[in-house]
Amino acid sequence: MSTVPLIEYETASPEVKAVFDDIQQIRNVHDVNNFWKALANHPEILKRTWKTLQEVMQPGALDALTKELIYIAVSITNKCDYCIYSHTAAASAKGMTPAQYQELLAVVGMAHQTNALATGMKVPVDQQFLAAATPEH
Amino acid sequence: MSTVPLIEYETASPEVKAVFDDIQQIRNVHDVNNFWKALANHPEILKRTWKTLQEVMQPGALDALTKELIYIAVSITNKCDYCIYSHTAAASAKGMTPAQYQELLAVVGMAHQTNALATGMKVPVDQQFLAAATPEH
Amino acid sequence: MSTVPLIEYETASPEVKAVFDDIQQIRNVHDVNNFWKALANHPEILKRTWKTLQEVMQPGALDALTKELIYIAVSITNKCDYCIYSHTAAASAKGMTPAQYQELLAVVGMAHQTNALATGMKVPVDQQFLAAATPEH
Amino acid sequence: MSTVPLIEYETASPEVKAVFDDIQQIRNVHDVNNFWKALANHPEILKRTWKTLQEVMQPGALDALTKELIYIAVSITNKCDYCIYSHTAAASAKGMTPAQYQELLAVVGMAHQTNALATGMKVPVDQQFLAAATPEH
Amino acid sequence: MSTVPLIEYETASPEVKAVFDDIQQIRNVHDVNNFWKALANHPEILKRTWKTLQEVMQPGALDALTKELIYIAVSITNKCDYCIYSHTAAASAKGMTPAQYQELLAVVGMAHQTNALATGMKVPVDQQFLAAATPEH
Amino acid sequence: MSTVPLIEYETASPEVKAVFDDIQQIRNVHDVNNFWKALANHPEILKRTWKTLQEVMQPGALDALTKELIYIAVSITNKCDYCIYSHTAAASAKGMTPAQYQELLAVVGMAHQTNALATGMKVPVDQQFLAAATPEH
Repeated sequence: MSTVPLIEYETASPEVKAVFDDIQQIRNVHDVNNFWKALANHPEILKRTWKTLQEVMQPGALDALTKELIYIAVSITNKCDYCIYSHTAAASAKGMTPAQYQELLAVVGMAHQTNALATGMKVPVDQQFLAAATPEH
Repeated sequence: MSTVPLIEYETASPEVKAVFDDIQQIRNVHDVNNFWKALANHPEILKRTWKTLQEVMQPGALDALTKELIYIAVSITNKCDYCIYSHTAAASAKGMTPAQYQELLAVVGMAHQTNALATGMKVPVDQQFLAAATPEH
Repeated sequence: MSTVPLIEYETASPEVKAVFDDIQQIRNVHDVNNFWKALANHPEILKRTWKTLQEVMQPGALDALTKELIYIAVSITNKCDYCIYSHTAAASAKGMTPAQYQELLAVVGMAHQTNALATGMKVPVDQQFLAAATPEH
Repeated sequence: MSTVPLIEYETASPEVKAVFDDIQQIRNVHDVNNFWKALANHPEILKRTWKTLQEVMQPGALDALTKELIYIAVSITNKCDYCIYSHTAAASAKGMTPAQYQELLAVVGMAHQTNALATGMKVPVDQQFLAAATPEH
Repeated sequence: MSTVPLIEYETASPEVKAVFDDIQQIRNVHDVNNFWKALANHPEILKRTWKTLQEVMQPGALDALTKELIYIAVSITNKCDYCIYSHTAAASAKGMTPAQYQELLAVVGMAHQTNALATGMKVPVDQQFLAAATPEH
Repeated sequence: MSTVPLIEYETASPEVKAVFDDIQQIRNVHDVNNFWKALANHPEILKRTWKTLQEVMQPGALDALTKELIYIAVSITNKCDYCIYSHTAAASAKGMTPAQYQELLAVVGMAHQTNALATGMKVPVDQQFLAAATPEH
């Protein structure tokens, strides 16, 4: 159970209803998901989060599915149960195949392992990586 | 400074030299990076890690660059300095553009924010996500 | 279910009962919460934790509510479900208003985002922060 | 060294200069800090982050210093070196005394300990916390 | 509920059945646990993980129980619920006594506290630790 | 550089000198390490931490070296640079061999990987682990 009530559309304030309407229209759903119902207790955060999420997840130099894969990877590493479920579902809805999901999990798992080994041994960063790390503008 | 010495090619055992030769050939480099030099103190881990990393990072249902982007995302979330530098450099070498890098950072930053909000409010997982989370085989 | 049994007052050893009595008296409750019942399996840790928690959470240069807000912030970041629930409840009991809770969540969410961006870009620490970081004695 | 160049005011685009001007004016400083110079490589993120940070850190139901203390707590838990330094400095500038800093560290340290114990023993959440967790609107 | 179906032995492919047979034989159990049933959706990861886990958890310079204690410590710190339960059970099966478990939890809790204090104060590493950190070959 | 000054013995208060004397005597060293010099800015935390650390790290059901291995494992997972260095050095001083260190790193690395996979797939906990997780008293 959430630490705040889940605000349903019917009992929401006009301010919140406006955001719910927008989410439902953009995402083509009948009802917003629990994350938004919880955030609706905090209208300022609700509006800001919805706005920013749309901007950030807009297909651009990275396509929509790639952005969801990254979102899953961060959510797993951050152990956010809600986000793991919701973004894995979103990625599937955007076309993620079982083969892609398997490869994502394999990369995430391996990255955790090498992250731990590099951290554990306090490996110093190579000079060439310091120079090469910046993508050219 | 690492917790173990960095093993240089010249002083490496034949077992380690064989792995270094393979890395240098596959990656087309003159010298392996510090991560492998540190791991070389632990030959069993060295061999296993190199072998697995090759399998996992092989282009497949996800292409090589997408895999690097996921690796960066996990490394940032895991705060692995070495890995952030090395994989950001690797992604650039595999063609990541500044625009792609900006979008990656934006998604990673936003994911951290919504992960924290969802966790903080202990939002319950929606039924439809539990059903939809599994990619169809 | 916990990895250890939850020890109820009735079946607790005299040593544990003494700690439970103290917690119940200080906190003005009829029964200790599950955290203490679980810790009761490890009497040394139980005594030490209760003693230290009292010292640390004593109102001082920071008042009791501020200390709970900090506790919630750490618990969210550490993804400790038990602690998120218990400390959010404790903060409410100490007078945290919905407006304060909203602002706390907003700060926690934003801090996660900027933490991720600063880490991801490996931003070097400014000289003035190194000098200014120490509160004057 | 950052993974992106630090953009100095002199060589910044008009779009970035406008944000730098605003930060310098609002914060009454001669130059923005490295975090903004790094973010300046990503103008969309720069503008959005500066705007949101101002909104979130505005004194309100929580005062400015309390918000910085929360920011430090999250940054320590997230191991963001840059953020630990910059927000500890900011808190000092906003009046954090050594006594307050000591108490903050004590709470953060203790929270980490009890978080780990509660997680390690998988303590089930008490019913009364589930009910009491929601601040009344 | 997992993001993938749990594959039961009866409906598993021959490739997966072979791995399940091996796990059941080596671990002397009638059925593999849910982790393997979930991983069975990703046969490449399943085979690799089982193989590596056997190699890594083999008693050697560290005995089997010590390895499980380390595994619990990492799992608690990584907040992996599944792993906390399964490895605490495995350690008990390998002879971990309540006294050993209490001491493990005490160390894990205290390590979290001093980790947070050292990180929070950005304590510089002592020269003698840099020199002494490397075990002699 | 730390966020607080490092307090040297010569300029320490009598209260702090007493703790430093105790640490130096118990650990048979000429000078305390930087962690204690930093904590010396916060005498209450200094005394409490030193006292608790001694109790927790006392050889008991687990020997001193095993406790250090657990401490290293947590410190790596928590990415505490200071603690990784200091506890790896302490473990070596307590007799950790290169073979033991290699096995420790292998377990820590693998635990990170399976933690991530179990979390990523949201594997439900098996009934037998819920029952078996509790060491018998």
